[in-house]
Amino acid sequence: MNNKNILDYETVELLPEENAVQIIDQTLLPGKTELIKLRTAKEIWDAIYLLKVRGAPAIGVAAALGIYILVNGIAFDGKDGQTKADTPENYPANYDYLCARFKEMKDYLASSRPTAVNLFWALNRMEAALLKWKDREGTVISDVKDALCKEAQAIREEDIAVCRSIGEYGLTLVKPGDGILTHCNAGQLATIKYGTATAPIYLGHERGYNFHVYCDETRPLLQGARLTAYELASAGIDVTLECDNMVASIMKEGRIQAVFVGCDRVASNGDAANKIGTSVVAMVAARYHVPFYVCAPTSTIDMSLASGSEIPIEQRNPDEVTQMWYEKRMAPENIKVYNPAFDVTDAELITGIITEYGIARAPYAESLKEIFAKKAEAK
Amino acid sequence: MNNKNILDYETVELLPEENAVQIIDQTLLPGKTELIKLRTAKEIWDAIYLLKVRGAPAIGVAAALGIYILVNGIAFDGKDGQTKADTPENYPANYDYLCARFKEMKDYLASSRPTAVNLFWALNRMEAALLKWKDREGTVISDVKDALCKEAQAIREEDIAVCRSIGEYGLTLVKPGDGILTHCNAGQLATIKYGTATAPIYLGHERGYNFHVYCDETRPLLQGARLTAYELASAGIDVTLECDNMVASIMKEGRIQAVFVGCDRVASNGDAANKIGTSVVAMVAARYHVPFYVCAPTSTIDMSLASGSEIPIEQRNPDEVTQMWYEKRMAPENIKVYNPAFDVTDAELITGIITEYGIARAPYAESLKEIFAKKAEAK
Repeated sequence: MNNKNILDYETVELLPEENAVQIIDQTLLPGKTELIKLRTAKEIWDAIYLLKVRGAPAIGVAAALGIYILVNGIAFDGKDGQTKADTPENYPANYDYLCARFKEMKDYLASSRPTAVNLFWALNRMEAALLKWKDREGTVISDVKDALCKEAQAIREEDIAVCRSIGEYGLTLVKPGDGILTHCNAGQLATIKYGTATAPIYLGHERGYNFHVYCDETRPLLQGARLTAYELASAGIDVTLECDNMVASIMKEGRIQAVFVGCDRVASNGDAANKIGTSVVAMVAARYHVPFYVCAPTSTIDMSLASGSEIPIEQRNPDEVTQMWYEKRMAPENIKVYNPAFDVTDAELITGIITEYGIARAPYAESLKEIFAKKAEAK
Repeated sequence: MNNKNILDYETVELLPEENAVQIIDQTLLPGKTELIKLRTAKEIWDAIYLLKVRGAPAIGVAAALGIYILVNGIAFDGKDGQTKADTPENYPANYDYLCARFKEMKDYLASSRPTAVNLFWALNRMEAALLKWKDREGTVISDVKDALCKEAQAIREEDIAVCRSIGEYGLTLVKPGDGILTHCNAGQLATIKYGTATAPIYLGHERGYNFHVYCDETRPLLQGARLTAYELASAGIDVTLECDNMVASIMKEGRIQAVFVGCDRVASNGDAANKIGTSVVAMVAARYHVPFYVCAPTSTIDMSLASGSEIPIEQRNPDEVTQMWYEKRMAPENIKVYNPAFDVTDAELITGIITEYGIARAPYAESLKEIFAKKAEAK
C-alpha cells in the first residue's frame, strides 16, 4: 500500500506560489496516491468531469479555488490589448473585462458536472464576491483578486470547520476501542479534511482511541473498498473491508458499537437519503441495538421537505452492476437491472443526526429546528 | 443471451447409449451454455474439482452417475487378462475384481472436493448397492451393472422429486403476478431439476403465474448474477438483478410479496445457515412484513443441532472480495478483509421452512419433528 498518510494533506488545496490547485487524483485510487496540479480551465473542468475530484464539498472547493486561479492568471498590464495597466484610473474598464471573463469561465466550469449542486453554489458565491467590487472607484484589480482568493479559501476553511465540528460531536458518542461501521465514502476524500462520517474516526485516531473500523465495500461503485478503506488505512487506522451483505454477521458477533454514515439529503422529519444500502445497515443495526448515526452538515438538511418520500431517487446505468468492474460480463446479456443510487433511511431507525451545530435526536421535526436556530444565532 | 431454456434439460444426466454423463459446464455461465459429456474418471474428477458441476445435490448425482459409467465401461470378456467372461461360474472372481476397481475409482472421485458431504454420501450409497451383490451365486456382472445404474438413477430421481415437492408446497404460498426475491443460487443449476428456492418459481411459471423475480447478485462470488439470473431468464421468467444492498429499496416500493432462499444447514430450532447475506434479507423482509421462506430438503435439517450457534462458519479467501472478478484490484493492498461464507438466520425471522414433506412453521422445535415423523412414515 502507498504509505502517504491522508491526514498529512488535503483533498483540494491552493498552491499560491504556483497559482495552481492541487488535488488527489481519485481515479488512481486505491492503487496509487498521486497529487496533481491543475492550472488551466480545461484541467479543472476535466478533473471534475472525470471524477478526479468528487464529493460535493470537494467539488465546490475545487471550483472556487479553480476560478480564483484562472482570474488570478489574467495579467492586467495592458500587454494583451484587452487589459490595461492595473491602476485606479483603469479600474472600471479592467473590472468589466474581468467580469466578462469570469462569466465565461464560470459557465464553462459549471458544465463539468451539471448535477452537482455544490458546484453551482460555490461558483455563485464566488460571483457574488466579485460583484461586490462593482463601482468601487479608487481600487485596483489586485484587490479584487485578493478578495476572490479569500472567498475561495473561506469556502475551503468552512468545510474543514464543519467536518471538524461534526467529528467533535460524533466523538462524544463512542469510546476508545470501539468498533465502528461505515458505508460508502463520506470520508476526507469527499471533503477537504476529515470527512463527515469519518470525522469522529480521524479525530479519535489523533487522540489514540484505537477504533476498529469496518467499511462496507458499497456496491455497485465500490466507494467503500476503493476510497474509504484506502483513506482510513493510509492514516494508520485499523480497518477491515467487508461486502455489504456481511453487516449482520459482523454485528451479531458484537464487533460494532456505532455506525456512522454520511448523507445526501435529510428531510425535516429526519428521514435521510444516502448511498444505496444505507437503510439496510440501519435495519440490521436496529436489530442488534447498535446506535446508527447520520453525519449531516446543515447544508444537506432540507427543511422544505416534509419527509424522505419527497426525495427523488435516480436510477443509474445497469452496466454499473453487470460489468463495470469485471474482466468479463458477470450477468446474462440484456438482463433487467434495478440500480437506484440512493435509499432513504426512515427517521425511526436513526439514533442521532450529527451536524456542525450539535446532535439532533428524535423527534427530529423539533430537534432539527433547534439546530437551525443555533445556526442562525451563530451568524 | 444464449436462448437454451434450462427447463428443457437437466443439470446432470446419463446418456446411456454413449455411456457418458452430460452436464452443463457452469464455469462458462452466464456467457455460454455448453453441455459437455464426461466419459473418463479424470473428466469426472475435473468437472467436480473445477466447479463445472456445483451444488450439493448436483455433485452427488454427478459422482453416482460417474462411478456407474466407469464400472459399466469395464468389459468383462477376459480379453484384458484381469476379467473373465461374464458367466455365473466366473462371477466370484469378476465380482472381486469389480469391487477392487470400484474402490479405486471411489477414492479418486471422493478426492475431487473433500468438503462436499453429498459427494461422499452418494459414493457410499453406490458402494452399499454394490456390496449387496457379494456372495450372490448364479448371477452375472451385467446384473450388478444394471443395479448400479438403477441406484444412480434413483439418487437422481429422488433429488428431482424432492425439488418438485418443495416447489408444490412453496407454490401454495404465493399467487400469480407476485414479486419474489431470492438470494444466491439455490436453483436448478445446484440440483438436477427445478432447484429448491427456485422450484416454486419454475412450477408457477409452467402454470402461467407470471412472477416478477428479483435476484440478489450475492457478493462476493456473484452466484445470483452469474447463475440465478441466467437460469431464470433462460426459462423466460421475468427476472431483475440487483445488488445485495438494494433489497430494502425494492421491498419498500412494495415489489416483493415473498422471499424464497435455500439453505446449507438448518438446526432443530429452525435457525438456518445459508449464503452470507441471507439473514440481512430476512431482517429487511421482517421490517416490510414480507414473508421469508427457507426451502430445505430434509437432508439439510440437522436435528442434532440445538441452534444455529452450533453451525461453524468458514472464513474464506480475502481475494474473493478484493480482486477476484476485477480488472484491477479494487481495494488497497494488504487490507484486512472479513469474508464469512455463510450467516445464520434466526428462526424468529423465518415465516416457514419448506421441506419435501410439507411446510414447518414456528415453533420449529415441534414442527420440524413432525416433518421427520412424516418422512419416517413415508418410507
